[in-house]
Amino acid sequence: MTTPFGDRLAAAISKKGTPILLGLDPHLDLLPSPFDGAADAHRDVNERAELIGDFCCQLVDVCADRVPAVKPQSAFFEQLGSAGVAAFERVCDHARAAGLLVVGDVKRGDIASTADAYARAFFDPPMGIGACDAITVSPYLGADTLEPFAKAAKTAGGGLFVLVRTSNPGSGAWQGHGAPPVSELVAAGVHALGADTLGASGYSSIGAVCGATHPDQLTTWRQLMPHAFLLLPGYGAQGATAKDVSGAFRPDGTGAIVASSRGIAFAYRTGHTDWKTAASEALDHMRSDLAGALPGGA
Amino acid sequence: MTTPFGDRLAAAISKKGTPILLGLDPHLDLLPSPFDGAADAHRDVNERAELIGDFCCQLVDVCADRVPAVKPQSAFFEQLGSAGVAAFERVCDHARAAGLLVVGDVKRGDIASTADAYARAFFDPPMGIGACDAITVSPYLGADTLEPFAKAAKTAGGGLFVLVRTSNPGSGAWQGHGAPPVSELVAAGVHALGADTLGASGYSSIGAVCGATHPDQLTTWRQLMPHAFLLLPGYGAQGATAKDVSGAFRPDGTGAIVASSRGIAFAYRTGHTDWKTAASEALDHMRSDLAGALPGGA
Repeated sequence: MTTPFGDRLAAAISKKGTPILLGLDPHLDLLPSPFDGAADAHRDVNERAELIGDFCCQLVDVCADRVPAVKPQSAFFEQLGSAGVAAFERVCDHARAAGLLVVGDVKRGDIASTADAYARAFFDPPMGIGACDAITVSPYLGADTLEPFAKAAKTAGGGLFVLVRTSNPGSGAWQGHGAPPVSELVAAGVHALGADTLGASGYSSIGAVCGATHPDQLTTWRQLMPHAFLLLPGYGAQGATAKDVSGAFRPDGTGAIVASSRGIAFAYRTGHTDWKTAASEALDHMRSDLAGALPGGA
Repeated sequence: MTTPFGDRLAAAISKKGTPILLGLDPHLDLLPSPFDGAADAHRDVNERAELIGDFCCQLVDVCADRVPAVKPQSAFFEQLGSAGVAAFERVCDHARAAGLLVVGDVKRGDIASTADAYARAFFDPPMGIGACDAITVSPYLGADTLEPFAKAAKTAGGGLFVLVRTSNPGSGAWQGHGAPPVSELVAAGVHALGADTLGASGYSSIGAVCGATHPDQLTTWRQLMPHAFLLLPGYGAQGATAKDVSGAFRPDGTGAIVASSRGIAFAYRTGHTDWKTAASEALDHMRSDLAGALPGGA
């Protein structure tokens, strides 16, 4: 039987000594040479998709020894159609072969048998897009629509990260509506949904996305979902610092993963000429930045 | 310049004389022979994807003269990976070539440049998955995250259907939370977002998904979003009747589209041996059912 996702993530973070989740977001307009040809609308779409796939695979190779997990963003692959989706599949396979956990950032959400089909797409590798260890899901449709995803995840030893409070400036308008706010109801739903996946690590396989751009709320999320891994977007490019994310961690320095996408992948744009060296240095910088600010010296 | 989506949808409904939105949901376990080979996990995935694509294209051919629009459900294609996504592309192209509007049921939602990338995937045919006239989007991340989708839709003469209140039993828990409920805030957002797309038909290009399984609420949605097309799931298999959906329409019988997927596509399962005849008869039945119950005799 596959080890539950929560335990696998805890082990991977411990092994690599950092809670960094490397985002793989192949923005067509930000790619370094020779991958920048992917932005050329006159080129064959299969060639363009090859380029974004190659870039992400090489970025994985640069960082694989120093991160526990990667997060490919589906949108940047889907924008190149089915050829792009094939590149997404290849990048997932490559990252897993490099020993990394793959969190597919797909933010899917739908009802009943449709949710089942989405779950198969990401947790049933012989069949679907596959090869994800976990995916992000959107909760708007209701708790009942998260259950098929959770069931499929558990069967596969996979995990979910449910959107609770996102990192964008307008996230509060609807997520923060009501008393208690909707986002707190969703957090309670995440806690309940993960109860039967609690592993030996003390963590469940059902996590939550909580924007690091709301640092004052992170301790609330930590308390409402004591066994959930919190996935924190917003570090770096969106303005959150290592100190900002610290409230999402337990006193022993575990329990959250900090996403960084363009801050590492496109670090070359701030002056370096060699994109791999720039990415590698940016990763080292983020590792020490977090190590210095997180509780427990993790 | 492309005619705005709202006007195109209004014209298509008027031309075909019915507000039916034909769902294209290739459930692997419900397909008739010879397409049922798609459920065979031992078969090559490309062959399986061909089969679901063929089924949907033939279903389009059976119904094209009597429906204004189709709604392919992305999940049932994604479950076969990139090969399935290629079939989705083919089905969209086929439906458009048959003169139908295509509403991609993808329920995407993300922030900023990621939302841009998703919008390109569905509104920029030369580049992405493309070939959709409109898509469904999920609002959990906030109104600011709907704007990139709306902008891309407007540029392409396309449309959006924003999830407001879904048809599943648990939809109320979070969508209905607060006073006023979150879903009403989203409805107000839909109305605002569509204001600058109001066309000659009196409809905007930004519509809303409102479950027909909540008939008592449909008049509220009609009032809160006077210029929006309401996309109504829940008719038939989920229990809503023609009478139930009537509150979503204006007194002249316009303003909503009623989705039906398995009630037409898989009508053969209730006894017919010929799936095309069964689908065709089910479609005729739905047409008369709606014609008899909607205001204005539409």
